Amino acid sequence: MTRSFSLAVIPGDGIGPEVVAEATRVLDEVARIHDVTFEQTPYVLGAEHYIETGEVLPDATLAEIRGHDAILLGAIGGKPGDPRLPAGLLERNLLLRLRFQLDHYVNLRPTKTYPQVNSPLRDAEGVDFVVVREGTEGPYVGNGGRLRADTPHEVATEVSLNTAFGVERVVRDAFARAQARRKKLTLVHKTNVLVHSGAVWSRIVDAVAPEFPEVTVDYLHVDAATIFLVTDPARFDVIVTDNLFGDILTDLAGAISGGIGLAASGNINPDRTAPSMFEPVHGSAPDIAGQGIADPTAAIGSVALLLEHLGLPEAAAQIDRAIAADITARTGQRTTKEVGEAIAARVAGDVGGA
Amino acid sequence: MTRSFSLAVIPGDGIGPEVVAEATRVLDEVARIHDVTFEQTPYVLGAEHYIETGEVLPDATLAEIRGHDAILLGAIGGKPGDPRLPAGLLERNLLLRLRFQLDHYVNLRPTKTYPQVNSPLRDAEGVDFVVVREGTEGPYVGNGGRLRADTPHEVATEVSLNTAFGVERVVRDAFARAQARRKKLTLVHKTNVLVHSGAVWSRIVDAVAPEFPEVTVDYLHVDAATIFLVTDPARFDVIVTDNLFGDILTDLAGAISGGIGLAASGNINPDRTAPSMFEPVHGSAPDIAGQGIADPTAAIGSVALLLEHLGLPEAAAQIDRAIAADITARTGQRTTKEVGEAIAARVAGDVGGA
Ligand SMILES: CC(C)[C@H](C(=O)O)[C@@H](O)C(=O)O
Ligand SMILES: CC(C)[C@H](C(=O)O)[C@@H](O)C(=O)O
Repeated sequence: MTRSFSLAVIPGDGIGPEVVAEATRVLDEVARIHDVTFEQTPYVLGAEHYIETGEVLPDATLAEIRGHDAILLGAIGGKPGDPRLPAGLLERNLLLRLRFQLDHYVNLRPTKTYPQVNSPLRDAEGVDFVVVREGTEGPYVGNGGRLRADTPHEVATEVSLNTAFGVERVVRDAFARAQARRKKLTLVHKTNVLVHSGAVWSRIVDAVAPEFPEVTVDYLHVDAATIFLVTDPARFDVIVTDNLFGDILTDLAGAISGGIGLAASGNINPDRTAPSMFEPVHGSAPDIAGQGIADPTAAIGSVALLLEHLGLPEAAAQIDRAIAADITARTGQRTTKEVGEAIAARVAGDVGGA
Repeated sequence: MTRSFSLAVIPGDGIGPEVVAEATRVLDEVARIHDVTFEQTPYVLGAEHYIETGEVLPDATLAEIRGHDAILLGAIGGKPGDPRLPAGLLERNLLLRLRFQLDHYVNLRPTKTYPQVNSPLRDAEGVDFVVVREGTEGPYVGNGGRLRADTPHEVATEVSLNTAFGVERVVRDAFARAQARRKKLTLVHKTNVLVHSGAVWSRIVDAVAPEFPEVTVDYLHVDAATIFLVTDPARFDVIVTDNLFGDILTDLAGAISGGIGLAASGNINPDRTAPSMFEPVHGSAPDIAGQGIADPTAAIGSVALLLEHLGLPEAAAQIDRAIAADITARTGQRTTKEVGEAIAARVAGDVGGA
């Protein structure tokens, strides 16, 4: 019996299509080895598509995407400052719309360092943590507005919305992940200033903690967390945090672990009421697009998270091992395709275990 | 004629009094050399004072503080998790109340690396930038609340308030500083997600830019800014950003430039309608308080910013030179007092120029 999964593939803009091509190359290898089928339906969405058609994410397209088992996304975003792209339009109405509409409340972003990787830190050894970033509320809800816009009397607001419901489900997920790992959970927030939202996060972490008596709980203000990320990143196991702090911390985490080109992510709906979406943390990088030099590792790592989510943990582990081996063996520059082929070949040659 | 300045001194909690003692030691040296007088009025405020008296910042005390020429502050904050200190009480009602009530709209935080300093980065050479952090609005306004608090149906909000008035005055200050430095200004925000507040920041930077035609303007999303702070911190000259992003970026900046023990700051009211306040970026560090081992350099550097603000730039430059020389000559551990004495001695021995 061949298991079959249906995937929505959104290559997107810039280097998105380039890295997605390598991600699907590795996926094809997995399909061959494990006797599974991944039916891939491409969706042309993003900056270019918007400029050509005026369409961002039509309801009908969203409904179609909803019918798949999972989504693989490359990157969304045009050239910075392109006057045809109003600020935030694609982010809010495409990327965040997918995350919010498909209830991706766990934005999972693992960080790991490998011996050969060129970290900007003197000491980045033994870094292995995962950020569980809330994905459906906080300052990302888009709630706010402008009064007397474009006048000297303008007032603009942004409202961060935080619900006990939304915080509890992501906190519970983070505790479970900590329990399955090194049993350490760090809540990151700014409870001394954002006292209202901070109160919800703190009390829910305190309330859930007794259900996970083996997990040690720690708290850091977001400013202090950035300090530890550069002075002692190995201290972290699982970080749970809100949507905005998670955005900031995971870019920093990507940078210290050798570059955002390695950082994979999953936008996960743990209740499986809609497909989860897997994407590299990096953006569309218009400056290097079309040259075939983008690192596809983050996109390939995102495929591993996708496979894990679809119930193929051995296949996911094979990709992770292949990525680790590839990174460790790195010398000099390679093209996007060379990296993809090298990792695919390692997956093909993987005889299990490590 | 002896010029005389009246200072409010708030030593505060933990290591606050220890580092302030060394800061005033250096100040005394400056007074002697430059034939100025600094009348110092101590104000006992902070966690300990609150626990003993229930008082945070009485209106009468605030009114008195308002009468001084400037404020020197050590650090505010008790032991984390102390049940006698509600989360955010001192931060909101003492520290932030001072910043807001005294209209400290320019929160100035310089970052510089010195050859001998132990940065966690492999390459932290030539880092020399200043963050102009907005100090009186944004997510720090305390606007928000909790509905159905402590129930499963709780909703908590935080409202970020941003006004054209508030943004324009700090942006103008940042442009002027960039003009007087290496002529590069980087706006940091998250305009692709926080579209309402982002619009105000972007349009005001664009509107003010033509008045400073020599200043090159750059924009980075806050997440990308953290990446550059660890991969290429030397690229920055002046960063202008909102209250929360500035908080995060300056702790990270402190860490990469060799530790938050070196990071000085000024909470400046450029219109001089109320006294400005100078404080180290670090907190009260209860874990090392009372041991005499805290680094007073940040507090002493804050005195330099204070002198600059009071119109004593030569005295400020003397302190900066003394700090640079002290940091460059560092070997092994010294006590708080030893560092203070060493820097005071260098100020005393400074024969001008460098
Ligand atoms: C593009 C942007 C909306 C997005 C975010 O802020 O979440 C990105 O930075 C990310 O981290 O996936
Ligand atoms: C203590 C806290 C309220 C304060 C802030 O967030 O501004 C501190 O972190 C700082 O940076 O001065």
